Amino acid sequence: ADIKAGRQLASAQCRTCHGLDGIAQIPVAPHLAGESEIYLQTQLKAFRSGKRQSEMMSVVAKNLRDDDIVNVAAWYAAIEITAEMPE
Amino acid sequence: ADIKAGRQLASAQCRTCHGLDGIAQIPVAPHLAGESEIYLQTQLKAFRSGKRQSEMMSVVAKNLRDDDIVNVAAWYAAIEITAEMPE
Repeated sequence: ADIKAGRQLASAQCRTCHGLDGIAQIPVAPHLAGESEIYLQTQLKAFRSGKRQSEMMSVVAKNLRDDDIVNVAAWYAAIEITAEMPE
Repeated sequence: ADIKAGRQLASAQCRTCHGLDGIAQIPVAPHLAGESEIYLQTQLKAFRSGKRQSEMMSVVAKNLRDDDIVNVAAWYAAIEITAEMPE
């Protein structure tokens, strides 16, 4: 995977909703930060094939090549996250 | 929403794969920490109705009542996350 290419793709096509750092900018979009490569790849391919439906993502994923999916998944998977539960 | 009830439900039914703190324990499951209530509710309802398919989640979601969904979404949404991008 080419993480640098993945970062560029994320910056161009994902960041408005999901953030370049994978922290979502709008409530209907999920955070992607630190999700596993296999999860991200599986979901992008499901959007691309129509198996998973989303008004926005069905359009975006349609134009992704396999290597785009590998690269952008590698970018978001490389982000480290920490979680803090409420008291 | 009853966050305490949501935490209990998460502890009983979600934590093995998604973690009680929403950090996934297995690569095929996404992190849920800090996802928005609306996103979490929408996805759980999609799994329950069959609109979104997943071997595991289609089974789990089938038994959730509306208030279970509201409560468990409130629990995971209440977790604070921070993300750090690679250099």
